[in-house]
Amino acid sequence: MLEGWLRLKVLLIIGDGMADRPLKELGWKTPLEAARKPSMNHMASVGICGIMDPIAPGIPPGSDTATLALLGYDAFEVYSGRGAFEALGSGIAVMEGDVCFRCNFASVDENHVILDRRAGRIADSDASKLAESLKKVKLSDSSVKFLFANTVQHRAVLVLRGSKLSRAVSDSDPGITGEKVLEVKPLEDNSEARHTAKILNELMEKFHKVLKEHPINKERVARGLPPANAILVRGAGILPKIRPLSEIYSVEAVCVAATSLIRGVCKAAGMQLLTIKSATGTPQTDYIAKAKAAVQALKENDLVLLHVKAPDVASHDGNVRQKVEVIEKIDRMLSYILNKVDLGETYVALTADHTTSCVTGNHEGDPVPVAITGPYVRSDDVEEFGERACAKGGLGRLRGKDLMPILMNFIGKVKKFGA
Amino acid sequence: MLEGWLRLKVLLIIGDGMADRPLKELGWKTPLEAARKPSMNHMASVGICGIMDPIAPGIPPGSDTATLALLGYDAFEVYSGRGAFEALGSGIAVMEGDVCFRCNFASVDENHVILDRRAGRIADSDASKLAESLKKVKLSDSSVKFLFANTVQHRAVLVLRGSKLSRAVSDSDPGITGEKVLEVKPLEDNSEARHTAKILNELMEKFHKVLKEHPINKERVARGLPPANAILVRGAGILPKIRPLSEIYSVEAVCVAATSLIRGVCKAAGMQLLTIKSATGTPQTDYIAKAKAAVQALKENDLVLLHVKAPDVASHDGNVRQKVEVIEKIDRMLSYILNKVDLGETYVALTADHTTSCVTGNHEGDPVPVAITGPYVRSDDVEEFGERACAKGGLGRLRGKDLMPILMNFIGKVKKFGA
Repeated sequence: MLEGWLRLKVLLIIGDGMADRPLKELGWKTPLEAARKPSMNHMASVGICGIMDPIAPGIPPGSDTATLALLGYDAFEVYSGRGAFEALGSGIAVMEGDVCFRCNFASVDENHVILDRRAGRIADSDASKLAESLKKVKLSDSSVKFLFANTVQHRAVLVLRGSKLSRAVSDSDPGITGEKVLEVKPLEDNSEARHTAKILNELMEKFHKVLKEHPINKERVARGLPPANAILVRGAGILPKIRPLSEIYSVEAVCVAATSLIRGVCKAAGMQLLTIKSATGTPQTDYIAKAKAAVQALKENDLVLLHVKAPDVASHDGNVRQKVEVIEKIDRMLSYILNKVDLGETYVALTADHTTSCVTGNHEGDPVPVAITGPYVRSDDVEEFGERACAKGGLGRLRGKDLMPILMNFIGKVKKFGA
Repeated sequence: MLEGWLRLKVLLIIGDGMADRPLKELGWKTPLEAARKPSMNHMASVGICGIMDPIAPGIPPGSDTATLALLGYDAFEVYSGRGAFEALGSGIAVMEGDVCFRCNFASVDENHVILDRRAGRIADSDASKLAESLKKVKLSDSSVKFLFANTVQHRAVLVLRGSKLSRAVSDSDPGITGEKVLEVKPLEDNSEARHTAKILNELMEKFHKVLKEHPINKERVARGLPPANAILVRGAGILPKIRPLSEIYSVEAVCVAATSLIRGVCKAAGMQLLTIKSATGTPQTDYIAKAKAAVQALKENDLVLLHVKAPDVASHDGNVRQKVEVIEKIDRMLSYILNKVDLGETYVALTADHTTSCVTGNHEGDPVPVAITGPYVRSDDVEEFGERACAKGGLGRLRGKDLMPILMNFIGKVKKFGA
């Protein structure tokens, strides 16, 4: 009766922001509905489908909270800010108590008014040299250490390490150009929050002094490029208190994702991170290289999460045509996967982490479609992978945090509750 | 990309107790299913449908808890009794700490046995004169003030104001004729509850003394009418601790409702209350006047709640024919609305606050149908607005408290959770 020689596995494929609303230019179809996607439709046909509220009906999820939910965590309970995920995803070994921030290299004028929040999307090489100099800054409170690392282009992360720190501090990044860099303020009335705000303001000031005199910036100005003369911080976060997936489900789990935020969430869940050089987190990413890595990883692991950022990028740009195209590329990636994996022992789930509207350019709280194939799923009548088709599926309407237990249950990894 | 020139709005139409169970006299259709309702069916056809448990599956909601839920609150968490809503709805500026009650003018005999719980549905003019006299009563504890106001016919509200009061007290209204007026008892073992019960019993006694000697009542007896010689209290309540909708969603919100309970819940949620003279809360209400007010209110507001009490009244009376008729009147009201509002920028939602059975005459815990139309809804295959047809819709099965986030998400008013 038991097929003990099989090692059942799960491949969870997430198209970031892949779900959408009906669009006039697509004849009131969504990009998913309009795209040519034979492999996705095949999954819908042979599998079980449904719709899913990543967080809860009507709540627009961040990519961090949505990914936490898809990994089975209750994001309302465990979410502790974005910063720690960004830092983890960039390769910093974040420790308990560390307070982490997303940073931007920015261009400001002499009055600290922001001229460019991305310092002209500064090249990695320039950013690296500037970051080297920033690492030498000394804080007046020697009990607090900081780590600073640039990641891609203008992006960077900052980690404060020491006792008596708090994530209850405001952003210095106002989010738009033409406004002054904001003073960081404590968001709670306690000494930790006040202390953390003070340290950040000191750091921002010292960073600014180093940057504005830096030879790289003088050279940039000479070349007609905006100087990267300020660091903006936002999204204070600490490590969430979560049990790793290996402990909850006794699984070996791996993440194939280029986006540092997603990598960070997976790292926080105890997953191994694979790095694929040609995977860029852009619509031009190497879809097949990611697919190959995922197929390979399935041989040694119980759970592989394969994340593709591209549809979200297209949606934020309101680029409907590009969104349809990247969905079609994901479909070809899926075709490769379905041809390579052993479908007799692999459950494949396909979904999105949230809806991103090409009209508003924002994450929206509309549900996402989900399809699951595998040896013993109760297949339904749905024959198309789309927001509306999947709503008629056998899974009904789920919450994001229910997906991982459903998948782990298929491979026998969920402990019985009761006796 | 952004449609910044649009001011998206939501109109939420609630037919009180409009949902029902299949009825033999309607060939096992529900009143909604049996009614001629082209506009409701049009909404179902072009919109997205579903069914909704106002509170939770199988739980019969009160109109107060159901309306709280439909406004997006967790009624299990925030509900604090009916009294404060009744008082707010009658126009009293209820303050934090006030304990409020629904009251009836009733007729009792010399042994305090209730002869008529509604004092022959006493006319407003008589009730007003009696209420004036009651306001002069003095309590022995001068630290407690009371406010008393008659509303419609035999209905009235009482508010106790002072420190050390509690809503944990029993009703004096036994709910049926032929029984004695009950002594109010503390429902918790603490001095606040005991103190509040004592004050109420003193007030009831003093009110009775004033009323039984009142010229209006002597005149009523002379005219062969039952005297309104007692006040019955029930439904102790305090203001719920809820954040106003304006704060949660940054919206301007308005309520078009005649029923004081619904008005009170909306007031507690920070909504503006419109008063339409010809709207009566009865099956004979001026449906089109309400529709006009709602359409007008949509011009200046983000959210308009339009509530029609009539189907609940018909259901409580077990009047199947009248229920079908008022549903058809609501359909004509809806037709007026759909012709007048700008459907390019308005989301219209149609639902009921609960099922009221024409057979039992009670609120029941069966789910209610819901339909939402608007520019970017993911329309489904449902073509009829009914309890069974909507169960096949794209929304699936929701909870009442999820409806408001879903609607607010459509108009871009829900803050992202996470980053």
